[in-house]
Amino acid sequence: MKTIILAMSFVLISLGCSPKKENPKAAQQKQNHVKPIPPNRYNVGFLIMNGTYNTEFTAPFDIFQHTRYRDNIKAMNTFTVANTLEPITTFEGLRILPDYDYTQDGLPAIDILVVPSAEHHLDTDLEDAQLLEFVRKVDAKALFVTSHCDGAFILAKAGLLDKVVSTTFPSDIEKYRKMFPQLKVKDSVLFVHDGKYITSAGGAKSFEAALYVCERLYGAEVARSIAKGLVIDWNLQALPCLIPQ
Amino acid sequence: MKTIILAMSFVLISLGCSPKKENPKAAQQKQNHVKPIPPNRYNVGFLIMNGTYNTEFTAPFDIFQHTRYRDNIKAMNTFTVANTLEPITTFEGLRILPDYDYTQDGLPAIDILVVPSAEHHLDTDLEDAQLLEFVRKVDAKALFVTSHCDGAFILAKAGLLDKVVSTTFPSDIEKYRKMFPQLKVKDSVLFVHDGKYITSAGGAKSFEAALYVCERLYGAEVARSIAKGLVIDWNLQALPCLIPQ
Repeated sequence: MKTIILAMSFVLISLGCSPKKENPKAAQQKQNHVKPIPPNRYNVGFLIMNGTYNTEFTAPFDIFQHTRYRDNIKAMNTFTVANTLEPITTFEGLRILPDYDYTQDGLPAIDILVVPSAEHHLDTDLEDAQLLEFVRKVDAKALFVTSHCDGAFILAKAGLLDKVVSTTFPSDIEKYRKMFPQLKVKDSVLFVHDGKYITSAGGAKSFEAALYVCERLYGAEVARSIAKGLVIDWNLQALPCLIPQ
Repeated sequence: MKTIILAMSFVLISLGCSPKKENPKAAQQKQNHVKPIPPNRYNVGFLIMNGTYNTEFTAPFDIFQHTRYRDNIKAMNTFTVANTLEPITTFEGLRILPDYDYTQDGLPAIDILVVPSAEHHLDTDLEDAQLLEFVRKVDAKALFVTSHCDGAFILAKAGLLDKVVSTTFPSDIEKYRKMFPQLKVKDSVLFVHDGKYITSAGGAKSFEAALYVCERLYGAEVARSIAKGLVIDWNLQALPCLIPQ
Protein backbone atom coordinates (compact mmCIF):
# COMPACT_ATOMS: atom_id res chain seq x y z
CA MET A 1 0.00 0.00 0.00
CA LYS A 2 2.84 2.33 1.00
CA THR A 3 4.51 1.53 -2.32
CA ILE A 4 1.36 2.40 -4.25
CA ILE A 5 0.97 5.74 -2.45
CA LEU A 6 4.64 6.50 -3.05
CA ALA A 7 4.32 5.57 -6.72
CA MET A 8 1.19 7.72 -7.09
CA SER A 9 2.90 10.65 -5.35
CA PHE A 10 5.85 10.27 -7.71
CA VAL A 11 3.53 10.33 -10.74
CA LEU A 12 1.74 13.40 -9.40
CA ILE A 13 5.01 15.18 -8.65
CA SER A 14 6.31 14.25 -12.11
CA LEU A 15 3.23 15.65 -13.78
CA GLY A 16 3.45 18.81 -11.68
CA CYS A 17 7.08 19.39 -12.65
CA SER A 18 6.85 18.72 -16.35
CA PRO A 19 6.92 21.88 -18.46
CA LYS A 20 5.28 19.92 -21.28
CA LYS A 21 1.95 19.58 -19.47
CA GLU A 22 1.11 23.25 -19.05
CA ASN A 23 2.33 26.77 -19.55
CA PRO A 24 5.92 26.77 -18.25
CA LYS A 25 5.66 30.14 -16.52
CA ALA A 26 2.56 28.99 -14.66
CA ALA A 27 4.35 25.79 -13.66
CA GLN A 28 7.31 27.82 -12.40
CA GLN A 29 5.14 30.03 -10.27
CA LYS A 30 3.42 27.00 -8.84
CA GLN A 31 6.43 24.96 -7.89
CA ASN A 32 10.01 26.10 -7.55
CA HIS A 33 11.66 22.73 -7.24
CA VAL A 34 12.20 19.60 -9.19
CA LYS A 35 14.07 17.46 -6.69
CA PRO A 36 12.87 15.80 -3.53
CA ILE A 37 14.82 17.15 -0.56
CA PRO A 38 15.43 14.36 1.94
CA PRO A 39 15.65 15.61 5.53
CA ASN A 40 18.62 15.26 7.88
CA ARG A 41 21.11 16.20 5.25
CA TYR A 42 23.14 19.30 4.48
CA ASN A 43 21.56 21.28 1.67
CA VAL A 44 24.24 22.36 -0.79
CA GLY A 45 23.27 24.98 -3.36
CA PHE A 46 25.38 25.54 -6.47
CA LEU A 47 24.98 29.01 -7.94
CA ILE A 48 25.00 28.62 -11.72
CA MET A 49 24.36 31.04 -14.57
CA ASN A 50 25.13 31.58 -18.23
CA GLY A 51 28.91 31.33 -18.53
CA THR A 52 29.53 29.05 -15.53
CA TYR A 53 32.67 26.98 -16.05
CA ASN A 54 31.87 23.26 -16.10
CA THR A 55 34.76 21.92 -14.03
CA GLU A 56 34.46 24.38 -11.17
CA PHE A 57 30.81 23.46 -10.94
CA THR A 58 30.88 19.67 -11.45
CA ALA A 59 34.04 18.93 -9.41
CA PRO A 60 32.58 20.04 -6.06
CA PHE A 61 29.11 18.86 -7.13
CA ASP A 62 30.40 15.31 -7.58
CA ILE A 63 32.44 15.24 -4.36
CA PHE A 64 29.45 16.48 -2.35
CA GLN A 65 26.80 14.38 -4.12
CA HIS A 66 28.82 11.21 -3.56
CA THR A 67 28.55 11.70 0.24
CA ARG A 68 25.16 10.02 0.04
CA TYR A 69 26.78 6.70 -0.78
CA ARG A 70 28.73 6.68 2.49
CA ASP A 71 27.17 5.14 5.60
CA ASN A 72 26.48 6.80 8.93
CA ILE A 73 27.12 10.39 7.96
CA LYS A 74 24.85 13.39 7.52
CA ALA A 75 25.13 13.37 3.71
CA MET A 76 24.45 16.23 1.31
CA ASN A 77 21.56 17.19 -0.95
CA THR A 78 23.16 18.86 -3.96
CA PHE A 79 21.11 21.12 -6.21
CA THR A 80 21.57 24.03 -8.57
CA VAL A 81 20.17 27.54 -8.18
CA ALA A 82 19.97 30.18 -10.88
CA ASN A 83 17.92 33.27 -11.66
CA THR A 84 15.71 31.18 -13.96
CA LEU A 85 14.32 27.69 -14.43
CA GLU A 86 15.08 27.89 -18.16
CA PRO A 87 18.30 26.18 -19.32
CA ILE A 88 21.53 28.04 -18.63
CA THR A 89 24.46 27.63 -21.02
CA THR A 90 27.84 27.03 -19.43
CA PHE A 91 31.01 28.68 -20.74
CA GLU A 92 31.87 25.47 -22.56
CA GLY A 93 28.40 25.21 -24.08
CA LEU A 94 26.48 22.67 -21.98
CA ARG A 95 22.81 23.49 -21.54
CA ILE A 96 21.74 22.70 -17.97
CA LEU A 97 18.29 22.96 -16.42
CA PRO A 98 18.56 24.64 -13.00
CA ASP A 99 16.80 22.98 -10.06
CA TYR A 100 15.70 26.22 -8.36
CA ASP A 101 15.11 29.82 -9.30
CA TYR A 102 16.42 32.07 -6.53
CA THR A 103 14.27 34.98 -7.71
CA GLN A 104 11.20 33.01 -6.66
CA ASP A 105 9.96 31.75 -3.32
CA GLY A 106 10.25 28.14 -2.31
CA LEU A 107 14.03 27.73 -2.15
CA PRO A 108 15.23 25.25 0.47
CA ALA A 109 17.47 26.60 3.24
CA ILE A 110 21.07 26.38 2.03
CA ASP A 111 23.68 25.11 4.49
CA ILE A 112 26.59 25.23 2.06
CA LEU A 113 26.73 27.66 -0.85
CA VAL A 114 29.08 26.89 -3.73
CA VAL A 115 29.95 29.67 -6.18
CA PRO A 116 31.76 28.23 -9.20
CA SER A 117 33.49 30.67 -11.53
CA ALA A 118 31.57 32.11 -14.48
CA GLU A 119 32.63 34.03 -17.54
CA HIS A 120 31.45 37.43 -16.28
CA HIS A 121 32.46 37.24 -12.64
CA LEU A 122 34.97 40.04 -13.19
CA ASP A 123 32.54 42.39 -14.91
CA THR A 124 28.77 42.30 -15.50
CA ASP A 125 27.92 39.69 -12.85
CA LEU A 126 29.39 42.05 -10.25
CA GLU A 127 26.70 44.58 -11.20
CA ASP A 128 23.87 42.11 -10.67
CA ALA A 129 22.26 43.43 -7.48
CA GLN A 130 19.79 40.55 -7.24
CA LEU A 131 22.61 37.99 -7.47
CA LEU A 132 24.68 39.73 -4.80
CA GLU A 133 21.65 40.09 -2.53
CA PHE A 134 20.91 36.37 -2.89
CA VAL A 135 24.50 35.52 -1.93
CA ARG A 136 24.34 37.81 1.13
CA LYS A 137 21.01 36.33 2.21
CA VAL A 138 22.29 32.75 2.00
CA ASP A 139 25.55 33.73 3.70
CA ALA A 140 23.68 35.03 6.74
CA LYS A 141 22.58 31.52 7.70
CA ALA A 142 25.05 29.23 5.92
CA LEU A 143 27.52 26.91 7.59
CA PHE A 144 30.03 27.26 4.74
CA VAL A 145 30.25 29.59 1.76
CA THR A 146 32.72 28.44 -0.88
CA SER A 147 34.05 29.79 -4.15
CA HIS A 148 36.09 28.26 -6.94
CA CYS A 149 38.34 30.31 -9.20
CA ASP A 150 36.75 33.70 -9.91
CA GLY A 151 33.72 32.91 -7.75
CA ALA A 152 35.71 34.77 -5.07
CA PHE A 153 35.04 38.03 -6.94
CA ILE A 154 31.31 37.55 -6.29
CA LEU A 155 31.83 36.85 -2.59
CA ALA A 156 34.20 39.82 -2.32
CA LYS A 157 31.80 42.15 -4.13
CA ALA A 158 29.01 41.00 -1.81
CA GLY A 159 31.23 42.19 1.04
CA LEU A 160 31.64 38.78 2.64
CA LEU A 161 35.42 38.43 2.56
CA ASP A 162 36.56 41.70 4.16
CA LYS A 163 37.54 40.11 7.47
CA VAL A 164 39.05 36.84 6.22
CA VAL A 165 41.95 35.65 4.12
CA SER A 166 40.92 34.46 0.64
CA THR A 167 42.30 33.32 -2.71
CA THR A 168 41.19 33.03 -6.34
CA PHE A 169 42.31 31.77 -9.77
CA PRO A 170 46.13 32.14 -9.97
CA SER A 171 46.12 34.28 -13.14
CA ASP A 172 43.52 36.65 -11.64
CA ILE A 173 45.16 37.25 -8.25
CA GLU A 174 46.53 40.66 -9.26
CA LYS A 175 43.15 41.81 -10.62
CA TYR A 176 41.56 40.57 -7.39
CA ARG A 177 44.00 42.57 -5.25
CA LYS A 178 43.46 45.65 -7.39
CA MET A 179 39.67 45.45 -7.45
CA PHE A 180 39.39 44.72 -3.71
CA PRO A 181 42.39 46.42 -2.05
CA GLN A 182 40.87 45.95 1.41
CA LEU A 183 41.14 42.16 1.20
CA LYS A 184 43.77 39.90 2.73
CA VAL A 185 44.76 37.75 -0.24
CA LYS A 186 46.87 34.60 -0.26
CA ASP A 187 48.40 33.32 -3.49
CA SER A 188 50.16 30.06 -4.41
CA VAL A 189 47.73 27.87 -2.48
CA LEU A 190 45.02 25.46 -3.64
CA PHE A 191 42.51 26.89 -1.21
CA VAL A 192 42.08 29.02 1.89
CA HIS A 193 39.68 28.31 4.76
CA ASP A 194 38.95 31.24 7.04
CA GLY A 195 35.82 31.56 9.14
CA LYS A 196 32.97 30.02 7.18
CA TYR A 197 34.64 30.84 3.85
CA ILE A 198 36.57 28.43 1.68
CA THR A 199 37.99 30.06 -1.44
CA SER A 200 39.70 27.83 -3.99
CA ALA A 201 42.10 28.41 -6.88
CA GLY A 202 39.57 26.48 -8.95
CA GLY A 203 40.02 24.48 -12.12
CA ALA A 204 40.85 20.84 -11.50
CA LYS A 205 41.89 21.83 -7.97
CA SER A 206 38.23 22.39 -7.14
CA PHE A 207 38.10 18.73 -6.12
CA GLU A 208 40.60 19.39 -3.34
CA ALA A 209 38.66 22.28 -1.77
CA ALA A 210 35.49 20.17 -1.75
CA LEU A 211 37.30 17.18 -0.29
CA TYR A 212 38.62 19.46 2.44
CA VAL A 213 35.03 20.37 3.36
CA CYS A 214 34.27 16.63 3.53
CA GLU A 215 37.27 16.02 5.76
CA ARG A 216 36.10 18.80 8.09
CA LEU A 217 32.57 17.44 8.29
CA TYR A 218 33.14 13.69 8.13
CA GLY A 219 36.81 13.02 8.88
CA ALA A 220 39.77 11.90 6.77
CA GLU A 221 38.57 8.36 6.13
CA VAL A 222 35.32 9.43 4.46
CA ALA A 223 37.18 12.10 2.45
CA ARG A 224 39.71 9.49 1.27
CA SER A 225 36.94 7.10 0.28
CA ILE A 226 35.09 9.73 -1.77
CA ALA A 227 38.38 10.81 -3.36
CA LYS A 228 39.15 7.21 -4.34
CA GLY A 229 35.83 7.03 -6.23
CA LEU A 230 37.14 9.87 -8.38
CA VAL A 231 40.65 8.39 -8.74
CA ILE A 232 42.19 10.98 -6.42
CA ASP A 233 44.81 10.04 -3.83
CA TRP A 234 43.71 12.24 -0.93
CA ASN A 235 46.14 13.49 1.69
CA LEU A 236 45.25 16.88 3.14
CA GLN A 237 48.60 17.22 4.92
CA ALA A 238 50.48 17.14 1.61
CA LEU A 239 48.53 20.02 0.02
CA PRO A 240 49.57 23.67 -0.27
CA CYS A 241 46.62 25.34 1.46
CA LEU A 242 45.93 27.85 4.20
CA ILE A 243 43.75 26.93 7.12
CA PRO A 244 44.13 29.76 9.64
CA GLN A 245 41.74 28.26 12.18
CA MET B 1 17.79 44.91 -44.22
CA LYS B 2 20.33 42.14 -43.71
CA THR B 3 19.98 42.66 -39.96
CA ILE B 4 16.20 42.35 -40.16
CA ILE B 5 16.42 39.15 -42.19
CA LEU B 6 18.97 37.74 -39.75
CA ALA B 7 16.79 38.69 -36.79
CA MET B 8 13.73 37.13 -38.45
CA SER B 9 15.69 33.97 -39.24
CA PHE B 10 16.81 33.80 -35.62
CA VAL B 11 13.21 34.10 -34.43
CA LEU B 12 12.10 31.41 -36.86
CA ILE B 13 14.94 29.09 -35.85
CA SER B 14 14.16 29.74 -32.19
CA LEU B 15 10.55 28.86 -32.73
CA GLY B 16 11.54 25.72 -34.60
CA CYS B 17 13.86 24.52 -31.81
CA SER B 18 11.65 25.28 -28.85
CA PRO B 19 9.73 22.27 -27.52
CA LYS B 20 7.19 24.66 -26.00
CA LYS B 21 5.92 25.93 -29.33
CA GLU B 22 4.90 22.65 -30.93
CA ASN B 23 4.97 18.93 -30.54
CA PRO B 24 8.51 18.11 -29.34
CA LYS B 25 8.83 15.01 -31.54
CA ALA B 26 7.92 17.05 -34.61
CA ALA B 27 10.52 19.67 -33.67
CA GLN B 28 13.14 16.95 -33.25
CA GLN B 29 12.43 15.48 -36.64
CA LYS B 30 12.78 18.90 -38.18
CA GLN B 31 16.18 19.84 -36.81
CA ASN B 32 18.73 17.60 -35.16
CA HIS B 33 21.18 20.22 -34.04
CA VAL B 34 21.36 23.25 -31.86
CA LYS B 35 24.96 24.32 -32.29
CA PRO B 36 26.68 25.88 -35.25
CA ILE B 37 29.51 23.63 -36.42
CA PRO B 38 32.40 25.79 -37.61
CA PRO B 39 34.46 24.16 -40.36
CA ASN B 40 38.16 23.29 -40.21
CA ARG B 41 37.93 21.91 -36.72
CA TYR B 42 37.90 18.43 -35.23
CA ASN B 43 34.36 17.40 -34.34
CA VAL B 44 34.33 15.83 -30.88
CA GLY B 45 31.17 13.99 -29.85
CA PHE B 46 30.49 13.15 -26.20
CA LEU B 47 28.17 10.18 -25.77
CA ILE B 48 25.90 10.99 -22.83
CA MET B 49 22.86 9.27 -21.37
CA ASN B 50 20.90 8.95 -18.15
CA GLY B 51 23.44 8.02 -15.48
CA THR B 52 26.51 9.61 -17.10
CA TYR B 53 29.04 10.62 -14.44
CA ASN B 54 29.62 14.38 -14.48
CA THR B 55 33.38 14.50 -14.04
CA GLU B 56 34.22 11.92 -16.69
CA PHE B 57 32.11 13.92 -19.08
CA THR B 58 33.04 17.52 -18.20
CA ALA B 59 36.79 16.99 -17.64
CA PRO B 60 37.55 16.00 -21.26
CA PHE B 61 34.81 18.32 -22.53
CA ASP B 62 36.55 21.31 -20.94
CA ILE B 63 40.04 20.35 -22.09
CA PHE B 64 38.84 19.90 -25.66
CA GLN B 65 36.52 22.93 -25.75
CA HIS B 66 39.31 25.20 -24.52
CA THR B 67 41.37 24.37 -27.64
CA ARG B 68 39.40 27.04 -29.46
CA TYR B 69 41.07 29.76 -27.39
CA ARG B 70 44.54 28.77 -28.63
CA ASP B 71 45.91 30.35 -31.80
CA ASN B 72 47.04 28.61 -34.96
CA ILE B 73 45.73 25.13 -34.26
CA LYS B 74 42.90 23.07 -35.73
CA ALA B 75 40.67 23.46 -32.67
CA MET B 76 37.75 21.27 -31.61
CA ASN B 77 33.98 21.55 -31.86
CA THR B 78 32.65 19.83 -28.74
CA PHE B 79 29.06 18.62 -28.61
CA THR B 80 26.95 16.02 -26.87
CA VAL B 81 25.10 13.12 -28.49
CA ALA B 82 22.41 11.00 -26.86
CA ASN B 83 19.50 8.83 -27.95
CA THR B 84 17.15 11.76 -27.37
CA LEU B 85 16.95 15.54 -27.48
CA GLU B 86 15.06 15.55 -24.18
CA PRO B 87 17.11 16.30 -21.04
CA ILE B 88 19.23 13.44 -19.73
CA THR B 89 19.90 13.19 -15.99
CA THR B 90 23.48 12.50 -14.96
CA PHE B 91 24.34 10.10 -12.14
CA GLU B 92 24.79 13.07 -9.83
CA GLY B 93 21.46 14.59 -10.85
CA LEU B 94 22.26 17.32 -13.37
CA ARG B 95 19.72 17.67 -16.16
CA ILE B 96 21.48 18.34 -19.46
CA LEU B 97 19.97 18.98 -22.87
CA PRO B 98 21.82 16.91 -25.51
CA ASP B 99 22.98 18.69 -28.67
CA TYR B 100 22.27 15.79 -31.04
CA ASP B 101 20.11 12.69 -31.13
CA TYR B 102 22.09 9.83 -32.66
CA THR B 103 18.92 7.90 -33.48
CA GLN B 104 18.07 10.60 -36.02
CA ASP B 105 19.72 11.80 -39.20
CA GLY B 106 21.71 15.00 -39.35
CA LEU B 107 24.59 14.16 -37.02
CA PRO B 108 27.90 15.81 -37.97
CA ALA B 109 30.81 13.50 -38.79
CA ILE B 110 32.63 12.72 -35.54
CA ASP B 111 36.44 12.80 -35.58
CA ILE B 112 36.89 12.05 -31.89
CA LEU B 113 34.35 10.07 -29.88
CA VAL B 114 34.40 10.38 -26.09
CA VAL B 115 32.57 7.79 -24.01
CA PRO B 116 32.38 8.92 -20.37
CA SER B 117 31.32 6.38 -17.78
CA ALA B 118 27.65 5.97 -16.95
CA GLU B 119 25.83 4.18 -14.16
CA HIS B 120 24.72 1.21 -16.27
CA HIS B 121 27.81 0.63 -18.38
CA LEU B 122 28.35 -2.73 -16.68
CA ASP B 123 24.81 -3.97 -17.21
CA THR B 124 21.81 -2.63 -19.15
CA ASP B 125 23.73 -0.21 -21.41
CA LEU B 126 25.68 -3.22 -22.73
CA GLU B 127 22.39 -4.65 -24.02
CA ASP B 128 21.52 -1.49 -25.93
CA ALA B 129 22.02 -2.60 -29.54
CA GLN B 130 21.34 0.86 -30.97
CA LEU B 131 23.98 2.42 -28.69
CA LEU B 132 26.59 -0.20 -29.61
CA GLU B 133 25.80 0.16 -33.31
CA PHE B 134 26.22 3.93 -33.07
CA VAL B 135 29.63 3.48 -31.41
CA ARG B 136 30.75 1.02 -34.10
CA LYS B 137 29.56 3.32 -36.86
CA VAL B 138 31.46 6.31 -35.48
CA ASP B 139 34.54 4.17 -34.81
CA ALA B 140 34.74 3.16 -38.47
CA LYS B 141 35.69 6.71 -39.49
CA ALA B 142 37.02 8.30 -36.29
CA LEU B 143 40.54 9.51 -35.70
CA PHE B 144 40.39 8.71 -31.96
CA VAL B 145 37.89 6.82 -29.83
CA THR B 146 38.29 7.43 -26.11
CA SER B 147 36.70 6.12 -22.94
CA HIS B 148 36.84 7.26 -19.33
CA CYS B 149 36.33 4.90 -16.42
CA ASP B 150 33.68 2.29 -17.29
CA GLY B 151 33.19 3.72 -20.77
CA ALA B 152 35.71 1.05 -21.75
CA PHE B 153 33.02 -1.60 -21.15
CA ILE B 154 30.97 -0.04 -23.98
CA LEU B 155 33.93 0.00 -26.37
CA ALA B 156 34.83 -3.57 -25.41
CA LYS B 157 31.25 -4.80 -25.84
CA ALA B 158 31.13 -3.11 -29.26
CA GLY B 159 34.13 -5.27 -30.15
CA LEU B 160 36.52 -2.36 -30.70
CA LEU B 161 39.23 -3.23 -28.19
CA ASP B 162 40.02 -6.85 -29.05
CA LYS B 163 43.31 -6.06 -30.76
CA VAL B 164 44.61 -3.32 -28.46
CA VAL B 165 45.68 -2.86 -24.85
CA SER B 166 43.12 -1.01 -22.72
CA THR B 167 42.31 0.03 -19.17
CA THR B 168 39.29 1.09 -17.09
CA PHE B 169 38.28 2.32 -13.61
CA PRO B 170 40.71 0.79 -11.07
CA SER B 171 38.00 -0.84 -8.92
CA ASP B 172 36.39 -2.43 -12.00
CA ILE B 173 39.53 -3.91 -13.60
CA GLU B 174 38.77 -7.44 -12.36
CA LYS B 175 35.17 -7.30 -13.60
CA TYR B 176 36.50 -6.01 -16.93
CA ARG B 177 38.95 -8.91 -17.25
CA LYS B 178 36.24 -11.39 -16.32
CA MET B 179 33.61 -9.99 -18.69
CA PHE B 180 36.03 -9.66 -21.62
CA PRO B 181 38.65 -12.41 -21.17
CA GLN B 182 39.94 -11.88 -24.72
CA LEU B 183 41.20 -8.38 -23.94
CA LYS B 184 44.74 -7.26 -23.15
CA VAL B 185 44.19 -5.20 -19.99
CA LYS B 186 46.66 -2.91 -18.26
CA ASP B 187 46.08 -1.81 -14.67
CA SER B 188 47.75 0.82 -12.46
CA VAL B 189 47.98 3.42 -15.22
CA LEU B 190 46.09 6.67 -15.78
CA PHE B 191 45.43 5.83 -19.40
CA VAL B 192 46.44 3.60 -22.30
CA HIS B 193 46.81 4.68 -25.93
CA ASP B 194 46.84 1.88 -28.48
CA GLY B 195 45.87 2.32 -32.12
CA LYS B 196 43.10 4.90 -32.26
CA TYR B 197 41.89 4.01 -28.76
CA ILE B 198 42.62 5.92 -25.59
CA THR B 199 41.11 4.32 -22.51
CA SER B 200 41.39 6.17 -19.21
CA ALA B 201 41.04 5.21 -15.54
CA GLY B 202 38.55 8.06 -15.36
CA GLY B 203 37.48 10.19 -12.40
CA ALA B 204 39.62 13.28 -11.92
CA LYS B 205 42.28 11.59 -14.06
CA SER B 206 40.06 12.13 -17.12
CA PHE B 207 41.78 15.48 -17.54
CA GLU B 208 45.10 13.75 -18.13
CA ALA B 209 43.83 11.46 -20.89
CA ALA B 210 42.28 14.43 -22.69
CA LEU B 211 45.44 16.51 -22.28
CA TYR B 212 47.38 13.62 -23.77
CA VAL B 213 45.18 13.79 -26.90
CA CYS B 214 45.93 17.53 -27.07
CA GLU B 215 49.65 16.89 -26.76
CA ARG B 216 49.45 14.36 -29.61
CA LEU B 217 47.52 16.74 -31.86
CA TYR B 218 49.01 20.10 -30.93
CA GLY B 219 52.26 19.49 -29.05
CA ALA B 220 53.35 19.86 -25.44
CA GLU B 221 53.21 23.64 -25.28
CA VAL B 222 49.52 23.85 -26.23
CA ALA B 223 48.69 21.00 -23.83
CA ARG B 224 50.54 22.79 -21.01
CA SER B 225 48.72 26.04 -21.75
CA ILE B 226 45.28 24.39 -21.69
CA ALA B 227 46.23 22.53 -18.50
CA LYS B 228 47.29 25.78 -16.84
CA GLY B 229 43.82 27.23 -17.50
CA LEU B 230 42.45 24.41 -15.38
CA VAL B 231 45.16 24.73 -12.68
CA ILE B 232 46.90 21.52 -13.77
CA ASP B 233 50.69 21.28 -13.93
CA TRP B 234 51.08 19.19 -17.10
CA ASN B 235 54.07 16.95 -17.69
CA LEU B 236 53.30 13.86 -19.75
CA GLN B 237 56.67 12.29 -19.01
CA ALA B 238 55.90 12.15 -15.29
CA LEU B 239 52.61 10.26 -15.67
CA PRO B 240 52.00 6.52 -15.23
CA CYS B 241 50.51 5.67 -18.61
CA LEU B 242 51.00 3.19 -21.44
CA ILE B 243 51.64 4.42 -24.96
CA PRO B 244 52.65 1.34 -26.97
CA GLN B 245 53.07 3.23 -30.22
